[in-house]
Amino acid sequence: MLRVGVNGYGTIGKRVADAIRAQPDMVVCGVAKRSPDYVAVGAAEESYPVYAVDGERTEEFRSIGIDLAGTVDELVDESDVMVDATPSGVGADNRSLYERHDTPALFQGGEDATVAEVSFNARVNYEEATGADYARVVSCNTTGLSRFVAPIEENYGIEKARATLIRRGGDPDQTGRGPINDAVPDPVSIPSHHGPDVQTIFPDLDIDTIGLKVPTTMMHVHAVNVTLEEAPDDVSEIRDRLRAEDRLVLIPEYAGIDGAGTLKDFALDAGRPRGDIWENCIWEESLTLEGSDLYCMQAIHQESDVVPENVDALRALSGHLSGPESRSLTNETLGIGL
Amino acid sequence: MLRVGVNGYGTIGKRVADAIRAQPDMVVCGVAKRSPDYVAVGAAEESYPVYAVDGERTEEFRSIGIDLAGTVDELVDESDVMVDATPSGVGADNRSLYERHDTPALFQGGEDATVAEVSFNARVNYEEATGADYARVVSCNTTGLSRFVAPIEENYGIEKARATLIRRGGDPDQTGRGPINDAVPDPVSIPSHHGPDVQTIFPDLDIDTIGLKVPTTMMHVHAVNVTLEEAPDDVSEIRDRLRAEDRLVLIPEYAGIDGAGTLKDFALDAGRPRGDIWENCIWEESLTLEGSDLYCMQAIHQESDVVPENVDALRALSGHLSGPESRSLTNETLGIGL
Amino acid sequence: MLRVGVNGYGTIGKRVADAIRAQPDMVVCGVAKRSPDYVAVGAAEESYPVYAVDGERTEEFRSIGIDLAGTVDELVDESDVMVDATPSGVGADNRSLYERHDTPALFQGGEDATVAEVSFNARVNYEEATGADYARVVSCNTTGLSRFVAPIEENYGIEKARATLIRRGGDPDQTGRGPINDAVPDPVSIPSHHGPDVQTIFPDLDIDTIGLKVPTTMMHVHAVNVTLEEAPDDVSEIRDRLRAEDRLVLIPEYAGIDGAGTLKDFALDAGRPRGDIWENCIWEESLTLEGSDLYCMQAIHQESDVVPENVDALRALSGHLSGPESRSLTNETLGIGL
Amino acid sequence: MLRVGVNGYGTIGKRVADAIRAQPDMVVCGVAKRSPDYVAVGAAEESYPVYAVDGERTEEFRSIGIDLAGTVDELVDESDVMVDATPSGVGADNRSLYERHDTPALFQGGEDATVAEVSFNARVNYEEATGADYARVVSCNTTGLSRFVAPIEENYGIEKARATLIRRGGDPDQTGRGPINDAVPDPVSIPSHHGPDVQTIFPDLDIDTIGLKVPTTMMHVHAVNVTLEEAPDDVSEIRDRLRAEDRLVLIPEYAGIDGAGTLKDFALDAGRPRGDIWENCIWEESLTLEGSDLYCMQAIHQESDVVPENVDALRALSGHLSGPESRSLTNETLGIGL
Ligand SMILES: NC(=O)c1ccc[n+]([C@@H]2O[C@H](COP(=O)([O-])OP(=O)(O)OC[C@H]3O[C@@H](n4cnc5c(N)ncnc54)[C@H](O)[C@@H]3O)[C@@H](O)[C@H]2O)c1
Ligand SMILES: NC(=O)c1ccc[n+]([C@@H]2O[C@H](COP(=O)([O-])OP(=O)(O)OC[C@H]3O[C@@H](n4cnc5c(N)ncnc54)[C@H](O)[C@@H]3O)[C@@H](O)[C@H]2O)c1
Ligand SMILES: NC(=O)c1ccc[n+]([C@@H]2O[C@H](COP(=O)([O-])OP(=O)(O)OC[C@H]3O[C@@H](n4cnc5c(N)ncnc54)[C@H](O)[C@@H]3O)[C@@H](O)[C@H]2O)c1
Ligand SMILES: NC(=O)c1ccc[n+]([C@@H]2O[C@H](COP(=O)([O-])OP(=O)(O)OC[C@H]3O[C@@H](n4cnc5c(N)ncnc54)[C@H](O)[C@@H]3O)[C@@H](O)[C@H]2O)c1
Repeated sequence: MLRVGVNGYGTIGKRVADAIRAQPDMVVCGVAKRSPDYVAVGAAEESYPVYAVDGERTEEFRSIGIDLAGTVDELVDESDVMVDATPSGVGADNRSLYERHDTPALFQGGEDATVAEVSFNARVNYEEATGADYARVVSCNTTGLSRFVAPIEENYGIEKARATLIRRGGDPDQTGRGPINDAVPDPVSIPSHHGPDVQTIFPDLDIDTIGLKVPTTMMHVHAVNVTLEEAPDDVSEIRDRLRAEDRLVLIPEYAGIDGAGTLKDFALDAGRPRGDIWENCIWEESLTLEGSDLYCMQAIHQESDVVPENVDALRALSGHLSGPESRSLTNETLGIGL
Repeated sequence: MLRVGVNGYGTIGKRVADAIRAQPDMVVCGVAKRSPDYVAVGAAEESYPVYAVDGERTEEFRSIGIDLAGTVDELVDESDVMVDATPSGVGADNRSLYERHDTPALFQGGEDATVAEVSFNARVNYEEATGADYARVVSCNTTGLSRFVAPIEENYGIEKARATLIRRGGDPDQTGRGPINDAVPDPVSIPSHHGPDVQTIFPDLDIDTIGLKVPTTMMHVHAVNVTLEEAPDDVSEIRDRLRAEDRLVLIPEYAGIDGAGTLKDFALDAGRPRGDIWENCIWEESLTLEGSDLYCMQAIHQESDVVPENVDALRALSGHLSGPESRSLTNETLGIGL
Repeated sequence: MLRVGVNGYGTIGKRVADAIRAQPDMVVCGVAKRSPDYVAVGAAEESYPVYAVDGERTEEFRSIGIDLAGTVDELVDESDVMVDATPSGVGADNRSLYERHDTPALFQGGEDATVAEVSFNARVNYEEATGADYARVVSCNTTGLSRFVAPIEENYGIEKARATLIRRGGDPDQTGRGPINDAVPDPVSIPSHHGPDVQTIFPDLDIDTIGLKVPTTMMHVHAVNVTLEEAPDDVSEIRDRLRAEDRLVLIPEYAGIDGAGTLKDFALDAGRPRGDIWENCIWEESLTLEGSDLYCMQAIHQESDVVPENVDALRALSGHLSGPESRSLTNETLGIGL
Repeated sequence: MLRVGVNGYGTIGKRVADAIRAQPDMVVCGVAKRSPDYVAVGAAEESYPVYAVDGERTEEFRSIGIDLAGTVDELVDESDVMVDATPSGVGADNRSLYERHDTPALFQGGEDATVAEVSFNARVNYEEATGADYARVVSCNTTGLSRFVAPIEENYGIEKARATLIRRGGDPDQTGRGPINDAVPDPVSIPSHHGPDVQTIFPDLDIDTIGLKVPTTMMHVHAVNVTLEEAPDDVSEIRDRLRAEDRLVLIPEYAGIDGAGTLKDFALDAGRPRGDIWENCIWEESLTLEGSDLYCMQAIHQESDVVPENVDALRALSGHLSGPESRSLTNETLGIGL
């Protein structure tokens, strides 16, 4: 039984904790929380032992009915492995904490690739992380691109990939983030950092990405183009291959799903926890082959697509299951596949 | 066992169906659906018998794996009572259908008050609907206002109520609705129709409302003012009374809940189905008494606050439980109270 | 000829500079700019002498073709009076700079009332600022409320005023500001700071305000209620009085103007510089009298309604014209009155 | 002197009328307006003779102070050429009206290409429209793409062009249009209709486009990729060529212009009528060459980029100036070139 501590219990941290709890071979040792707010209350109600990031706020936690299990230092000490889900940049600062306790750790995609010896995607390079001490689960966008690229690359070869990422401005709970009424090149320079990030997973892939942010909160949308080395005669062959992938979903035309609003409505109807959509959602109608150019649009749920990847990465670090075994266990326990 | 048919399986209809299913004294006889889309698939996956609104589309339904149980006419015939949750205006057209089969029916707030002999709010006038053949559950905004007004009116008397309704432009799945980047007086004239609608519940209440719509999809926000006839010495007394109400929730300051985004995040964390928030959410900090003027801001989840009201209205029509009995049974089965 | 320097050449500063230039009795001595960006280039193209806030960036300005006229210190020295239009809080820091040079100055509404001995609205208290060394032009929202309140207070007496301010989240150029998809109580507590700010203009007014921010950039919208001491028989009398006010505009129903988008479109069609709307825009249809309760909705162009007030305040400080004289000169030169 | 009538005086019509008025060789004969609203008042204030689309509304126009000059039939009769700027689809219906009076006419991009014998872009195919009776000025997006493609195609050859169009959901005055909080594939199928539309201008161009709409109102943003046949050694050569184009503007990095909000702010500062931006705005920093792949992002002001094209198309139809002569006259009179 792998004992996992979660440091940073926000959008990603709380989802990863719940996903770990659903596994037969792992247990949540505790979660480290900074502020005594509604999310902290939620952690306590889920019966996760809550550890303080800031020891001086113990009394504040107690005043809202939360008895702390200790400090983050103690959590790191008691855990076999840590998942760091703190805000971008904080993870890198935390690495010395994990080193001090000799506790392996996972970092998230907000950190630079240099934070860990390996950047991770379960579908592509599980083996590289096997037995590593530190790994970084790549960002929501990079995860989404990698999953799409993998079967295409394997079956047809990729001469060149290009993607325009229409990114949500902020998560639903981030009222301080914009833009309002603007589609902002972000970054203005091309290729955006997403391309090189995908190359941490596919070192030889020729890919250029363009990033913008828009006034939406629910999902990113990717407009993807891949020039194939050897295109099949018909797009239906590609469609079938994509459909066979475990973490890709094709949205059929009849469904009447036109955007993130209907996608989330669908996921909530289906009883998904928090309406999470762990899979890339590809509009089937958009999947098109023009000569050797393959196109599609896919929606990526930024809050949750990396969650199963974190679970798999934990198993890669601990080394007790192979990639395919871990993936299928994760899929089954979470209910992946719409 | 009350056999209930649901006609119109959209935002409201699917939620009401699930709420009925959770009751010990009711059963969903079937749901009538017009289009064979993702929502229809969802109905079938919930094992609700699906009836066609339009008999000519049977084949389309079959092609996506849905075997229809019949047509809407048959559903009305087999049901003890119908819940009509079709779009505004369609309900009124449907009344003759229900009359033809001598089946009592509930309508929703998108219909004019004249659609039924009584407009309904469980907290305020359950008894008036007892044994009626037709009743209308008032709209999300009117329900939200009525719940707030009720305890205030009873305990302090209301000289005058005024509310500014900052309404969401559309539901999350309605991509065709605006506004984008505008706060639009809607209607421009004052009082808006919401005031008279509240008076269908409180005939003697002096209330003026102002309506606007803004580019949001998650919840309405009400800025409410009530001039009391007899104000208490301290607002804390009022706060305690509101806290004691079953379908009002006070958001504490420490929670860090600043808007609909965090409220829904909270509801999703708490495992609420579809992240629904059946209760009015009042910001505790906003509850203020200035002389005899009481103020507050409350968020109203338009997609779900009328759901428990529909359940109670069904019992009122069938007459087998009293108002308090019904309300507490509904609250318990749904898990109302955050 | 009053020589005016403008410190802080952003949204407000550049508009005030242009308005000053349009006056026969004032001249823009220069503008102080911090960053060498498109706004700086614009200042140079308007032939305003540009002074550096930060002397070390001289070379950067030169590299984009702007020869600086000096530093802000020199500008303050050469000016008879300064308009400070720096961001909230910076103005207060700047006061010592103006004192050091013995130069009177105007501050903006982002500063606390304590920054100057008098808070100013041209319609209400021009005389109080006459001959003052420092005055603060109140904020866009407070200006908008004061203009509406003034004729009502004078003619009917106000028992109580209440306003809900549906505020734009950010100006059109502020892509970093939210919210996206949320209507956020801001502040959560009631009354919001706007009420007390209106009382710096009307010390005896009983007013409570509620503030929210929404995902719009163009204008604020106020939902206003005033309980009159002596209501007229008919709202038309009030309508006529409001129509007679120089900085209020009534939007007629036939115009088809439903929000800020059409209002700005109208102003741009009319050739207004920058599409500015210096006047409160009151929807005529919304103006309603229910007993002694007067209601209306008005849109306030946050970027420009304080501009004529700044011009008038400059004359009040210098003392060479009376309030009515200044107001009518400002109105005529800017083209106020739609 | 070419006598031009404008049928449909909305977003495009009013701008085209003003642009015609600024020409030395054309005059606005009159404008045909359907509703007596603020835009009609604006037309009258510009002293354009106003003709009624619907003769029965004469009295309504008179009641707001507009004396009609006649009906649209009379306008067509009196004009040498018509500009049809009615909503999509209405133009095609109007063609018979123009034929009946033997009056040549221009249509807009909302019509199908079949509405006229030639689709027009001033930079690319002015000559094709010379002397034609009917021509269609292509849409805002197609105009924007064509202008960018032209110099690239001429100098380097284009193997393949690909563009993702992040389209504004509605114009600022269209409060009824969405989406709110969603990035909606529109159309879902790839290539979107924009590609074939560009091919009405460049019949041999291999281009695929992807379209989405987002909750913004100010400008479209294009993420463009062009695979060159013969790439230069350095992107700076391309940059210089683009800079030399009359209707392309490069946004320099120092300007601090990050989106449509700042672009419009800049245009308004510069005194542009209605803040219009007739030119494609290309972020200079985004212009990148990766092997033979050229990339950039450009913002397109949907309300105005087709305006100079309409002016040029009028001259092409009447045949009295060559393309380069017309373009430079249009540029000079409007003040094109930022
Ligand atoms: N939200 C997304 O869309 C998304 C998607 C994929 C990856 N990521 C990455 O995941 C990481 C976490 O992002 P998130 O969206 O969950 O952020 P978040 O802000 O929702 O959560 C971070 C949590 O960490 C806490 N925290 C802050 N400082 C801390 C510290 N020193 N020690 C412990 N906890 C601390 C915060 O209070 C918060 O609860 C980032 O690297 C981010 O880039 C985010
Ligand atoms: N969504 C809200 O915010 C909200 C809140 C409270 C009350 N209401 C009211 O509830 C009612 C339903 O609204 P909704 O939001 O659920 O609408 P919806 O559009 O989400 O759902 C209506 C459903 O009825 C179906 N339908 C259309 N015509 C039909 C017909 N002739 N017969 C049967 N079904 C038909 C539609 O296909 C759709 O599935 C309206 O009166 C509305 O005003 C809505
Ligand atoms: N924008 C509005 O809606 C609005 C409306 C009414 C009043 N106000 C008030 O007007 C003031 C200015 O606001 P704004 O919207 O014009 O802000 P802004 O950010 O648009 O402009 C401020 C300018 O001051 C410059 N600046 C920053 N620090 C400076 C310094 N130390 N010295 C000189 N210049 C400096 C900035 O670079 C910028 O150009 C604030 O008090 C604000 O609250 C703003
Ligand atoms: N707005 C844009 O972004 C944009 C950009 C490029 C091209 N276009 C195209 O330009 C055309 C006009 O679009 P718009 O945005 O100006 O529309 P609009 O709605 O702003 O203006 C159209 C005007 O035509 C009037 N009208 C309606 N029916 C009429 C009739 N039968 N006869 C005469 N007038 C009538 C309307 O009342 C309105 O004033 C469309 O083909 C559109 O696709 C629009």
